[in-house]
Amino acid sequence: MISGVTMKLNLDEELLRALREDITSEDVTTNAVMPQARVGQADLICKETGVLAGLEVFTRVFTLLDASCTIEAAFQDGDTIQNGERVAVVRGDIRALLSGERVALNYLQRMCGIATYTRSLVKELEGSQTQLLDTRKTTPNMRWFEKYAVTVGGGKNHRYNLSDGVLIKDNHIGAAGGVRQAVEMARAYAPFVRKIEVEVESLDMLEEALKAGADIIMLDNMDLETMREAVRRVGGRAQTECSGNVTKERLKAIAEIGVDFVSCGALTHSAPILDLSLKNLKPVDENIR
Amino acid sequence: MISGVTMKLNLDEELLRALREDITSEDVTTNAVMPQARVGQADLICKETGVLAGLEVFTRVFTLLDASCTIEAAFQDGDTIQNGERVAVVRGDIRALLSGERVALNYLQRMCGIATYTRSLVKELEGSQTQLLDTRKTTPNMRWFEKYAVTVGGGKNHRYNLSDGVLIKDNHIGAAGGVRQAVEMARAYAPFVRKIEVEVESLDMLEEALKAGADIIMLDNMDLETMREAVRRVGGRAQTECSGNVTKERLKAIAEIGVDFVSCGALTHSAPILDLSLKNLKPVDENIR
Amino acid sequence: MISGVTMKLNLDEELLRALREDITSEDVTTNAVMPQARVGQADLICKETGVLAGLEVFTRVFTLLDASCTIEAAFQDGDTIQNGERVAVVRGDIRALLSGERVALNYLQRMCGIATYTRSLVKELEGSQTQLLDTRKTTPNMRWFEKYAVTVGGGKNHRYNLSDGVLIKDNHIGAAGGVRQAVEMARAYAPFVRKIEVEVESLDMLEEALKAGADIIMLDNMDLETMREAVRRVGGRAQTECSGNVTKERLKAIAEIGVDFVSCGALTHSAPILDLSLKNLKPVDENIR
Amino acid sequence: MISGVTMKLNLDEELLRALREDITSEDVTTNAVMPQARVGQADLICKETGVLAGLEVFTRVFTLLDASCTIEAAFQDGDTIQNGERVAVVRGDIRALLSGERVALNYLQRMCGIATYTRSLVKELEGSQTQLLDTRKTTPNMRWFEKYAVTVGGGKNHRYNLSDGVLIKDNHIGAAGGVRQAVEMARAYAPFVRKIEVEVESLDMLEEALKAGADIIMLDNMDLETMREAVRRVGGRAQTECSGNVTKERLKAIAEIGVDFVSCGALTHSAPILDLSLKNLKPVDENIR
Amino acid sequence: MISGVTMKLNLDEELLRALREDITSEDVTTNAVMPQARVGQADLICKETGVLAGLEVFTRVFTLLDASCTIEAAFQDGDTIQNGERVAVVRGDIRALLSGERVALNYLQRMCGIATYTRSLVKELEGSQTQLLDTRKTTPNMRWFEKYAVTVGGGKNHRYNLSDGVLIKDNHIGAAGGVRQAVEMARAYAPFVRKIEVEVESLDMLEEALKAGADIIMLDNMDLETMREAVRRVGGRAQTECSGNVTKERLKAIAEIGVDFVSCGALTHSAPILDLSLKNLKPVDENIR
Amino acid sequence: MISGVTMKLNLDEELLRALREDITSEDVTTNAVMPQARVGQADLICKETGVLAGLEVFTRVFTLLDASCTIEAAFQDGDTIQNGERVAVVRGDIRALLSGERVALNYLQRMCGIATYTRSLVKELEGSQTQLLDTRKTTPNMRWFEKYAVTVGGGKNHRYNLSDGVLIKDNHIGAAGGVRQAVEMARAYAPFVRKIEVEVESLDMLEEALKAGADIIMLDNMDLETMREAVRRVGGRAQTECSGNVTKERLKAIAEIGVDFVSCGALTHSAPILDLSLKNLKPVDENIR
Repeated sequence: MISGVTMKLNLDEELLRALREDITSEDVTTNAVMPQARVGQADLICKETGVLAGLEVFTRVFTLLDASCTIEAAFQDGDTIQNGERVAVVRGDIRALLSGERVALNYLQRMCGIATYTRSLVKELEGSQTQLLDTRKTTPNMRWFEKYAVTVGGGKNHRYNLSDGVLIKDNHIGAAGGVRQAVEMARAYAPFVRKIEVEVESLDMLEEALKAGADIIMLDNMDLETMREAVRRVGGRAQTECSGNVTKERLKAIAEIGVDFVSCGALTHSAPILDLSLKNLKPVDENIR
Repeated sequence: MISGVTMKLNLDEELLRALREDITSEDVTTNAVMPQARVGQADLICKETGVLAGLEVFTRVFTLLDASCTIEAAFQDGDTIQNGERVAVVRGDIRALLSGERVALNYLQRMCGIATYTRSLVKELEGSQTQLLDTRKTTPNMRWFEKYAVTVGGGKNHRYNLSDGVLIKDNHIGAAGGVRQAVEMARAYAPFVRKIEVEVESLDMLEEALKAGADIIMLDNMDLETMREAVRRVGGRAQTECSGNVTKERLKAIAEIGVDFVSCGALTHSAPILDLSLKNLKPVDENIR
Repeated sequence: MISGVTMKLNLDEELLRALREDITSEDVTTNAVMPQARVGQADLICKETGVLAGLEVFTRVFTLLDASCTIEAAFQDGDTIQNGERVAVVRGDIRALLSGERVALNYLQRMCGIATYTRSLVKELEGSQTQLLDTRKTTPNMRWFEKYAVTVGGGKNHRYNLSDGVLIKDNHIGAAGGVRQAVEMARAYAPFVRKIEVEVESLDMLEEALKAGADIIMLDNMDLETMREAVRRVGGRAQTECSGNVTKERLKAIAEIGVDFVSCGALTHSAPILDLSLKNLKPVDENIR
Repeated sequence: MISGVTMKLNLDEELLRALREDITSEDVTTNAVMPQARVGQADLICKETGVLAGLEVFTRVFTLLDASCTIEAAFQDGDTIQNGERVAVVRGDIRALLSGERVALNYLQRMCGIATYTRSLVKELEGSQTQLLDTRKTTPNMRWFEKYAVTVGGGKNHRYNLSDGVLIKDNHIGAAGGVRQAVEMARAYAPFVRKIEVEVESLDMLEEALKAGADIIMLDNMDLETMREAVRRVGGRAQTECSGNVTKERLKAIAEIGVDFVSCGALTHSAPILDLSLKNLKPVDENIR
Repeated sequence: MISGVTMKLNLDEELLRALREDITSEDVTTNAVMPQARVGQADLICKETGVLAGLEVFTRVFTLLDASCTIEAAFQDGDTIQNGERVAVVRGDIRALLSGERVALNYLQRMCGIATYTRSLVKELEGSQTQLLDTRKTTPNMRWFEKYAVTVGGGKNHRYNLSDGVLIKDNHIGAAGGVRQAVEMARAYAPFVRKIEVEVESLDMLEEALKAGADIIMLDNMDLETMREAVRRVGGRAQTECSGNVTKERLKAIAEIGVDFVSCGALTHSAPILDLSLKNLKPVDENIR
Repeated sequence: MISGVTMKLNLDEELLRALREDITSEDVTTNAVMPQARVGQADLICKETGVLAGLEVFTRVFTLLDASCTIEAAFQDGDTIQNGERVAVVRGDIRALLSGERVALNYLQRMCGIATYTRSLVKELEGSQTQLLDTRKTTPNMRWFEKYAVTVGGGKNHRYNLSDGVLIKDNHIGAAGGVRQAVEMARAYAPFVRKIEVEVESLDMLEEALKAGADIIMLDNMDLETMREAVRRVGGRAQTECSGNVTKERLKAIAEIGVDFVSCGALTHSAPILDLSLKNLKPVDENIR
């Protein structure tokens, strides 16, 4: 369940912007044919089997337009929903339902799509210790929604953004003059609660990173053999993350090596949507509040 | 080429929000290892063959962070770029390059992905009169970028949003009391420059819409036979748009029927990204401006 | 009745900005003499006969300051109100009534002024097919309010802004290299739901525009004779709009020519306000909510 | 000359909002026919004799869209401009000129209209000590522009808003329990740099206000005789302001009574615009910067 | 009591920004351990004796996060609160209480600190006519809160900002060409409700300022003897304000001289906070609304 | 040196808000006496010995008002500046210098005050391993500026806000049902790059926290004896932070115990400002750009 605090402080603003993107002056069609408020309801129908994620976001779009909107849901985030099932019934001013429909679905479909795809990858890791991570390859201005959907699908979040995690890549190492220097500069500069992660592309760099005391080591684009050796050398002194060229097919093999985490940009940059739609809109006998 | 007016008025704000989503206080890693400004350059590399779209958006992310950033591009929007090619060289304060990299790529990869997918569908329509349209099934707060990418790929834009086009669906018809009434109410209410589009699901509704004088008729979820009959009956009195269940496989058959337009939500809701990355960052001997 | 969706998404922001323009830190006078909340009511009095427009905007200013404010109205938008009549009674925290009074009236008086002036021009067109249009010569940041007031007065809206309508003027024609080219470029570029309007100043240009397939032809600054010939030549192949030098005195003559539309910037740029005021503020025996 | 500090801090935001009101996604017509930047120039032509006001605002609209825009002006704010005169030449990216034209003129025409009307009233006061004041009856979100135009026309500003001036009206007096109490409460509460103004409708209230030590006394809706007696009784102990029913015809008579100020809402709520237009747009041989 | 109008229009925006400064994506700790809403309550405890100021601001932080939050307060602004006392009990969704706690206290502690320090200085002026003033040396984006706290502590506000008061300093005098010119230019330019204050550093400047008709004269950094002579020369023709080098120790001596006002930047720039904390959070048996 | 990226993305917005807090319509005094732009310069003078922090922020206030402003500085952040020294010379449009002066100094004085106070505490820790930390007890909407000033003074930053660090307090523990459960829930929920910190008030809680695998343990309000025992028991298995009742006097004793960090809210909530002022403003012979 998404906290009301998070919704009000951090998400409402995005939802309102998305609504204003879709309605720059007014919803001309709806306002033309519905000059008065009237209560109605509509069904949220699942048209493809997958994982539900973002139902509260979907609902919030409508309550931002008409505070008296309500929803009765048969499912909650994380549930598997089947093609043809009625996920929920939304009720409120018909104009709010029509004007908000597209934006509400645009959020929900993407979030369900990500959760569904994430869960399909997480299944490959079952029985292993390896956890699936997202990345910062999210759609601009959609990060919270997409990272939340990853967790609903069973994935785990990497850092949220550049401000709340330290990840030293080769460019940073070059600028600092070496792995050791980079780690030291980061430790001196960053808030002390940050773990320091270093991206390494070879076993030599790995050794340096270990010596420098990195908390997390990202094994970038390594073949399975090298990765296995890397994990062996780390020997629990740091957490390990496999990154690059992570496909569904390779997941089991990666997990067997025993890395702690495997990160996958496709979770948020290439998951197709899950098809849902709003159907059966009809007026109900109820006074508008 | 994206107009500078569009960029300043309508896109900058989105880019800045996306940057602030990724940098809420500061880029800790970069600021730790690069305490001073230093000019550098990096290569934008294509890692998958596709259509370039959004290069000016990519560039603008960097100039918003450091006004002295420049780009030398070997390609422009609409060009096909091949796996391995260097698309452009970006130059500026290394801190701007590092801090902006992810956001710039997040935009570019999505836009190229959409353009690439659009072009692949447009190819199916070659030789026909039918044009490929996008929909409002865009990612929230990404609409301009995604619709622009559709045009780069050879598609054409449907209405931008609920304020600038009239599309009467069954719910509107129900509220108005019939197709004729709905069209009349829309014509009376909407700015006179709006075309009136009506969504029909049967030949009976089609006849009504034609009588009511609809400018555009959307043939929604019809099988090929019904669609063919529909186009025949319209006989040029209105524009026709095929919608629903539009897959790459069906496109040729749809085009043969002779509808004017075919719209496809997948262009913007399910195109996978095109893989590009920023590589070979290195300092250059140039004073920071 | 203005849709609640339009109010929340598109108008509230403007009203709040106007209130913050008038109250940058606090309403010093009111807060000095009324240190506590107290429920009161006041009468909205009409001081000049005219057309009511914007009552919901007037009300909204108060409910934004005190959600418990209510209004009892004796009239609704579109009604003629007479000098001396009580239009409505507003009730709520006296501080909200005093602090919001000026902004609420500033909106209402302008909107009523425009509706009143519009209706006086529309009367001149009675019995003809010609409809009165507004223009984009609206007060900055007041467009929705002013265009709505035009419709309340019986006018019809031209395009809302530069993004939702295509109007090709001589400068555009020059840039494109001719009328035909301009229309073709516009049709290729603009969303397909846009009608294409071309401004012509002579019969020659008119012929070109017709050939190019313009949907609407604006007859700009033509004398009555030329305009008559123009309408004859169009012969129903496009809609016609008369523009330029449109005065109350010429309206009947223009209508007789049979143009479809006549547009008039003065509706929104030079209508004087309608005088209304808030009177008889007094406390009522009711607990503040 | 408007200070650059005022422009950047306080006006730019309004101008940008007005531009975004007119261009919600892009200027479709201009972008269709002018796919590339090209330098051009256009003439600002006066089509009605009046007072120039707001030339820097007019210019700023264009430089916000294209920083390289420049203006050569033959006049400055406060000058009388004659029908037919070329006021200035604007130069810059033609797309910026076309896309900004309407908003720039919408500001300029209103500001010139107010300055022109103000000057015509100020003329009536020539030879007297009485100064003409504006009011808070300004167009929402246009206050600074309108009040500035009043000063260009020779008027003087009353308080800017509810936060920076104290004006005690009968409702405030009622709440406070009397004139004396209201003045005392205001003096105790308001920043000590505020002058205290009291609105009086009778000679009795005037006496109270004088006793209470009001700095300014507004003589509201008084006939000339009463006003004359009021000014006599004040005898220089406070400043006097005549308000209500102020028409051009009555101005001389009011001035002869010797009030210090006379305020007139019509300056900002009912002045018609001054007609100006942008003409003769043409490309120039100059590289875009 | 802070007016609800002030809170909604002018303060809410600041509080929300402060909350978003502290919660850029979500409150990770709270959301981890409290996945559901649950009603709880907590005590606001005073840990240091001082003056209460800002209780409504404190409360508003919570109601912005959860509209159903309520407060029962044992004290109100202006009361002295003792170390150990329970000032109030807050009740609402525990997640709102935890997520808002720090921001609410950060406001309250600063406001109480300023009120407490102000009152200690005001005590030194007891029995004199001299009033204590604040300055513009407030914390950026905290001005309203800090100036309000000054009044709660018994101080009086100087001008709110550069827009609502005229204070001519030596730099302005230099630019204008002399005291007389500066006062004349200010009187001509500023809204007529502004008092004109002039800062003088010597008795000569004082004479000039008096001749020029300044309403208020700031005696800047004068020793007690000069100040005494200055006050004597002013002789009631203007208000006097002592500024510069104002310490608690000198206050009595300054007051004895008989200046009308003494201003002190330390009220808002160097008052230490008053220690308060939120304790005893516990769930209560109540359904979340 | 503050990165230009940080300044543009994260700080400019705050500076502009602070400027608009001080100038809601315009700087009346300056605009009255300086109707034209004129280049001038002024000296930034130190009036109290301390640590310089925020010089780039100070400068940025002016360049935001006039892009051509420049600064020549004799010192940089971190330097000790002595009473009477000229820290820098600012040059630009005199109106920008006057209008921005107060806001620029309001930032600089607070930042220098914090850096100065921090350094004085850091001195007490010299020779020990213990590092001084700030807290979230910062002034609302000033966090970045204040935390940066702490680092300039030699302190180290704790987490930036509730989103980028996990700190489990007793309330969280109560909600989770125990220390172990709370740590597990946090580890499951939070991005994997977060260190988990637990606040303990007794040695029993400490043992639980250690068992639960906390990364950092905050020893809250412990006496020196208990703290010593706590550090002994931790034995390097986690980082330790001493919090509560941290005074300058106790610092040496705390450091001797060997905690890794000691956090002190007073750094940001009660440091008095450092006195600096802008003096000797004078015109220079240079054309305005």
